[in-house]
Amino acid sequence: MFLGLDRHLRPIARLFARFPTLTMAAAPPPFKPFTLALIQLGHVGDDKTANLKHAREMILKAAAGAESGSRPNLIVLPEVFNSPYGVSHFPKHAETIGFTPGQSFDASKSDSESVKMLSSTAKEIGTWLLGGSIPERTADGKLYNSCTVYSPKGTSYDRILHSQLTSFQENLSLCIAKSTCLTSISPDRLPSSEVLTGGSTMNFFDTEFARIGLGICYDVRFPELAAVAARQGCHMCIYPGAFNLTTGPLHWELLQRARAVDNQIFFSMCSPARNMTADYHAWGHTMVVDPMARVIAETQHDEDILFAHIGKSL
Amino acid sequence: MFLGLDRHLRPIARLFARFPTLTMAAAPPPFKPFTLALIQLGHVGDDKTANLKHAREMILKAAAGAESGSRPNLIVLPEVFNSPYGVSHFPKHAETIGFTPGQSFDASKSDSESVKMLSSTAKEIGTWLLGGSIPERTADGKLYNSCTVYSPKGTSYDRILHSQLTSFQENLSLCIAKSTCLTSISPDRLPSSEVLTGGSTMNFFDTEFARIGLGICYDVRFPELAAVAARQGCHMCIYPGAFNLTTGPLHWELLQRARAVDNQIFFSMCSPARNMTADYHAWGHTMVVDPMARVIAETQHDEDILFAHIGKSL
Repeated sequence: MFLGLDRHLRPIARLFARFPTLTMAAAPPPFKPFTLALIQLGHVGDDKTANLKHAREMILKAAAGAESGSRPNLIVLPEVFNSPYGVSHFPKHAETIGFTPGQSFDASKSDSESVKMLSSTAKEIGTWLLGGSIPERTADGKLYNSCTVYSPKGTSYDRILHSQLTSFQENLSLCIAKSTCLTSISPDRLPSSEVLTGGSTMNFFDTEFARIGLGICYDVRFPELAAVAARQGCHMCIYPGAFNLTTGPLHWELLQRARAVDNQIFFSMCSPARNMTADYHAWGHTMVVDPMARVIAETQHDEDILFAHIGKSL
Repeated sequence: MFLGLDRHLRPIARLFARFPTLTMAAAPPPFKPFTLALIQLGHVGDDKTANLKHAREMILKAAAGAESGSRPNLIVLPEVFNSPYGVSHFPKHAETIGFTPGQSFDASKSDSESVKMLSSTAKEIGTWLLGGSIPERTADGKLYNSCTVYSPKGTSYDRILHSQLTSFQENLSLCIAKSTCLTSISPDRLPSSEVLTGGSTMNFFDTEFARIGLGICYDVRFPELAAVAARQGCHMCIYPGAFNLTTGPLHWELLQRARAVDNQIFFSMCSPARNMTADYHAWGHTMVVDPMARVIAETQHDEDILFAHIGKSL
């Protein structure tokens, strides 16, 4: 139609079709102010063991709390925290999680080293942990960009939620999908890679302080996902994400502020730190936006832990 | 639910219900680059005749084109251009237009002085004219905030479209509705005025260069309206609007950029000039945003005519 509008809107139409009438999920927990710690993780290289060791150290550091503040109630890692970022790296670092929705799952016995570390660390610190995302290989051989969440008990299967990339862009990889908007006038520039498969659900998890909606990176370009989350009672959405030095300055803050004010929810995205020696240069600028679209906390682009008080006051 | 979310979402749910399946309107005209002139009108007082005289002068000035550029293909006036802004002024300045959708209408014989001036001036300059909005009193005595559009022929009834405030906030006045978001934590602060009635349709008009979607001011807070417009083939949305010194710095630019990038359309809002001696202090900052969310043209807050080239290039 115009500037790639047609391709851009098709997935939205599919989402609309999926929610012809929006039924409310079970009532969300009453909102209580809480403290969030977002880890803008750096020093991610090709050594998986080293990556997990450093991520664990940063989680423990975050759990200790800010110098001036209280310990966090929820700790968040960025997108693809256990692997360099890029389609050439994902197949090598993909792990088999073994989680099937509706079936019993013991994270401590997962084949995924990342899941085991996250689960045991969450239990150790007794804190909610949103484990960013990792490349996941499912039984059918497909690769997903998957977000796992751990309760303070760490291993309770019914508290572990498995969010696949909900980009509604099946057969487009995450990072390729991410560039769809930018290359929309030149569709032929889109590689036909099928490195990562898209998810198809809107996921949230309930804590004792809030209902938190999930998405990953490019998902933030679809206003309907956050709108559905808000209508399902989410008080906040948190998307691990890794915009780059083109999309970052253009849209990273804009999209978070828009999702927040349009839905009157808190919104946050947690980015990897920028590493100019890596293949992919993440924008950084992990931030938290309040329901009035005000940026209430923001890092720069180096490794950092961002603490934010999520309160009711406007 | 949370910070007024429930009240905020109810009208959105109504819009969803209204468009259970989105059917495409007749194909839009092929997009051709065009020149837009947005009049950030000032010097609006209590003297209707003087207001119309000055508005006409500014339209003629806009029609002459920018010093360095071509004549505009479409000229736009701001919200409530013929009356001071405020619920105390609207009843006094409201006019009876006499347009009924689907029925023959001769603008030159309207009871509305504003409509007659706009129609004759559009014909005189041979240019599309989006006549901002005026307070309208309909046969049932209700007041609307109404946007009228004139073809270069000025009087052709089938080119005149009548856009009522599509705020989906029936029985809330425009300016009261506008403050809903800000006062959402204190619903009791909302006056129960019913000065203006909300509209209930999404309107667009076709020119020889583009399909243009319409909305007024507070409508920009509802992402669905622009999404529906884009799905109906609109290449651009133009909303006359008058944010104030609170909502302006918070959300005027943010919402236009979000609507543009989310729907990959051009987006523009045309504000009155700021008058600190008036009851209402408009933000100004009439602007044009491209489909990548870049602000490609913007005024400050004084009376001005903003010319913008609406091209295909990203």
